[in-house]
Amino acid sequence: MRTTVGIIGAGPAGLLLARLLHNAGIDSVVLESRDRAYVEHRQRAGILEQGTVDVLREAGAGERMDREGLPHDGIELRFDRRRHRVDFPALTGGRSVMVYAQTEVCKDLIALQLKDGGPLLFEAEALAVEGAETESPRVRFRYEGREEVLECDYVVGCDGFWGVARKAVPAELSQVFERAYPFGWLGILADVPPSHDELVYARHDRGFALLSMRSPSVSRLYLQVPEGTDAQEWSDEEIWDELERRFETDDDWRLERGPITQKSVTPMRSFVHEPMRHGRLFLAGDAAHIVPPTGAKGLNLAVGDVVTFARALIEFRATGDATRLDSYSETCLRRVWQAERFSYAMTTMLHRAPDATPFDDRIQLARLDRITTARSAETDLAEGYTGFPLD
Amino acid sequence: MRTTVGIIGAGPAGLLLARLLHNAGIDSVVLESRDRAYVEHRQRAGILEQGTVDVLREAGAGERMDREGLPHDGIELRFDRRRHRVDFPALTGGRSVMVYAQTEVCKDLIALQLKDGGPLLFEAEALAVEGAETESPRVRFRYEGREEVLECDYVVGCDGFWGVARKAVPAELSQVFERAYPFGWLGILADVPPSHDELVYARHDRGFALLSMRSPSVSRLYLQVPEGTDAQEWSDEEIWDELERRFETDDDWRLERGPITQKSVTPMRSFVHEPMRHGRLFLAGDAAHIVPPTGAKGLNLAVGDVVTFARALIEFRATGDATRLDSYSETCLRRVWQAERFSYAMTTMLHRAPDATPFDDRIQLARLDRITTARSAETDLAEGYTGFPLD
Repeated sequence: MRTTVGIIGAGPAGLLLARLLHNAGIDSVVLESRDRAYVEHRQRAGILEQGTVDVLREAGAGERMDREGLPHDGIELRFDRRRHRVDFPALTGGRSVMVYAQTEVCKDLIALQLKDGGPLLFEAEALAVEGAETESPRVRFRYEGREEVLECDYVVGCDGFWGVARKAVPAELSQVFERAYPFGWLGILADVPPSHDELVYARHDRGFALLSMRSPSVSRLYLQVPEGTDAQEWSDEEIWDELERRFETDDDWRLERGPITQKSVTPMRSFVHEPMRHGRLFLAGDAAHIVPPTGAKGLNLAVGDVVTFARALIEFRATGDATRLDSYSETCLRRVWQAERFSYAMTTMLHRAPDATPFDDRIQLARLDRITTARSAETDLAEGYTGFPLD
Repeated sequence: MRTTVGIIGAGPAGLLLARLLHNAGIDSVVLESRDRAYVEHRQRAGILEQGTVDVLREAGAGERMDREGLPHDGIELRFDRRRHRVDFPALTGGRSVMVYAQTEVCKDLIALQLKDGGPLLFEAEALAVEGAETESPRVRFRYEGREEVLECDYVVGCDGFWGVARKAVPAELSQVFERAYPFGWLGILADVPPSHDELVYARHDRGFALLSMRSPSVSRLYLQVPEGTDAQEWSDEEIWDELERRFETDDDWRLERGPITQKSVTPMRSFVHEPMRHGRLFLAGDAAHIVPPTGAKGLNLAVGDVVTFARALIEFRATGDATRLDSYSETCLRRVWQAERFSYAMTTMLHRAPDATPFDDRIQLARLDRITTARSAETDLAEGYTGFPLD
């Protein structure tokens, strides 16, 4: 089998890349180790930055998003029983975000790809990337019980943190940057209309809490819990009680309860692999970097990576100028580190570390006080949240 | 002995307070444990915020400052061999800072006070504050070999971190917030014109460095050193060599060397005592809070405290309204925590902790990259550096 761009992984990064290339007349093959039902149902992120929304629309994949997604023009910060709204468009010259689940983005892109795109193989497990330093890199993969080889001009690894693509970068050329956080998020889905029409980020002495939503009738809520917590340790009632405490305000705002349909715990980690390119192998999304979910940056960074790759390749094929292709890693890493910084800042401002001192608590409150009283600091946050520019 | 306001400590806070009260026709007595020569020669801070400059002028104590001080409209951030200037007036609507040493401020205020002010007693060691909860608090002090009592309507403790005033707040009403940093500053004075006309804050893998000045012919330079370093461990040549490494750039900027006339090591600490008022005892400056020197906030916070007290007392005496006097602690603490936040942010962005990971290094560089490329973040820094508003 042979193609121009071999794409490993049918998450949002791989699927969007296939679509961008298809639209530019560049052929690709997508290899996905899981089956279609799994890919279309795994719960992941749900906040699309302005730039991501724009790219999906331009790619022709924005129709259902525009119909069913929830445009959000701000978030609420809650601390010390106070409420403060951050107005994104007013602070950023019109930028905002869209609540539309990653699973829905994937469904839309899969449908498009199966309708008129290049091959998208489910249950095709990539085993290794070979020859990244050569002109014709290869992906070895297992499909329908046989080992096959996909020969490519370029391979893009969109296969996530546990994927094989990153392993093809020689260890002596790799540098890894990591931070683990001593807490996680207990996340629930509940069949109840969201108690607020925008996301609420709450800093509380008992820990962080986040109110989010999947749709006008489905709430998505999170609680900071100690590292290693088992979601089943928490009864539904305990979860609602704890959410209520952390979201408490001085006004008459109320948290509405409903049946919890899913609960799980997500660990929190920051991770970056440098470089993001080795020869003709390009890493994108979680294959190269992980952010804690506080800044809602994971999916958007993955989109940024594949947009950078697609634009660079399209330019190279149109003009013969490889400058952007050659600087893929530097271009992406600059945005990645800004997102890592933003996610780290949001995480440390809102979560209570197990070893937090009273001084740390006061610094958190002073940071929130600054953001909610100084337009410069609030703008800095709004720009970070709505997204760093795509190159 | 009796007075309206008993002031403990003839540092810049106590001296400025005496002047502000004198100008308003309110009598005071200042008690200072050291002799005049000591007070006029101890090396301390040297950066006056816009608000401090304005207050000194209004108090009639700005004449020599305006003649000999060096107005600075910016600072330089240096990292990754790059240089970036932060333009204060352009970012803050005209605010800037003044380089004028704390010792000079003290000399000016002492001269004014001795000329026409209330009593300013040197070598008068405060022993205790008593009756803070009553209408007539007292300061017991030792002067010319005898124990004396100063009877007051109000006592203001401007006697620094080691002073007696804070001890008069009952422990059960006090809360202390602290952070120690595992490094200090090795500071030198050198007889050489400063190698740059504005302050240079350098982040380097080997540690932080700061280029500052006392006058057009005297440089003041600092190196981050491990906690507990003895200044005498460093030869003059080693200091210059290390400064040169940390300030290195890609252009032809050069560090000029000269005779080092003084060297010493300053530890780094954040400290806040709450509340800042107990009955008729008011704490001001280092008596209530310490910041690491990175943000140049210590002296300016002390000025903020006594301005808040003086304005509140003047208002109370003019109108009978004690609201501002009663909210002294809250008003000051809000500004104090903003300065603590700013100083902590500057310190952690620029210093290399002994246990710093490669991830921490990249986050520092991403923070600097953000400040030097986003106007919102740069404005946030410029506003913080030039000072938080006085109430």
